[in-house]
Amino acid sequence: MRVFGIDCGTEFTGYGVIEQDERARMPRLVQVAAGTIRLSKKEKAPERLVKVYKELLALITLHQPDVVAIEDVFFSANVKSALKLGQVRGVAMLAAATCGLPVAEYAPLVIKSSVVGYGLAAKEQVQFMVTRLLELDCAPESPDAADALAIAICHIHTSQTLQQQGCR
Amino acid sequence: MRVFGIDCGTEFTGYGVIEQDERARMPRLVQVAAGTIRLSKKEKAPERLVKVYKELLALITLHQPDVVAIEDVFFSANVKSALKLGQVRGVAMLAAATCGLPVAEYAPLVIKSSVVGYGLAAKEQVQFMVTRLLELDCAPESPDAADALAIAICHIHTSQTLQQQGCR
Repeated sequence: MRVFGIDCGTEFTGYGVIEQDERARMPRLVQVAAGTIRLSKKEKAPERLVKVYKELLALITLHQPDVVAIEDVFFSANVKSALKLGQVRGVAMLAAATCGLPVAEYAPLVIKSSVVGYGLAAKEQVQFMVTRLLELDCAPESPDAADALAIAICHIHTSQTLQQQGCR
Repeated sequence: MRVFGIDCGTEFTGYGVIEQDERARMPRLVQVAAGTIRLSKKEKAPERLVKVYKELLALITLHQPDVVAIEDVFFSANVKSALKLGQVRGVAMLAAATCGLPVAEYAPLVIKSSVVGYGLAAKEQVQFMVTRLLELDCAPESPDAADALAIAICHIHTSQTLQQQGCR
């Protein structure tokens, strides 16, 4: 299974692609790619959205994942910032659906629990555990890329649990 | 000037296209088209977003406006609904930008003031004034289509005022 995780943000949108060979005797998680789409504050919202959409579309086409996983958000500083974050989430979902891929959503608490074992873990703890779980030489290039990898790991862990329980 | 107004919603997204011939001696506002994109609650968010995006793209291509105008939102029932509304707004902006069109945003208070003359006007008052201003035989097919027409009217009024003041 290959998962494309997206951590949506109005300035930085992280992405992380993870693969797990389910046929292997000792399946381990492998990072295929990770990075950050950086948006300039000088650009207007529509231009930013075009950039995120085009880059995600190109990355999804390049890495050919089976599923796209994104973070579900329930809280935000205010309505205005929730609306702006929603705009980026909208084009991210659109990019996935345009490629014919299913979109899985996970709450931040579930993602952190799945990766760190503690739902209220700090960003640094998420980075540390992502680096360990993927056996990386150094931490991902940005906290956003680390979060995107964490979302992808969460999807694989959740799928495995559901499979073991005979739910999928 | 031809304006494509969009009233974004998670269930119903209204659109309204208005034209004003600025060269005419007595320029009047003419409705070119108006309608509602209906989304099923049974569909998942990515599928809904694809539907809104594709329909808006087709409508913009068909009606060839000079500009797209949408409502700017500052308040919402909660963060979750703001995020969902933002998703629709994101793909609406993307559709406009993909067609190379500028996007103008107006606060609800500004839109209602421009059309009704009162920023806190009720939906019915907006519908009534839109029907009168556009000299329609009957009210627009839905409150969402009426709101979209109101957004387009607001853009034309605002542009005229700025032009008269030598700002544009």
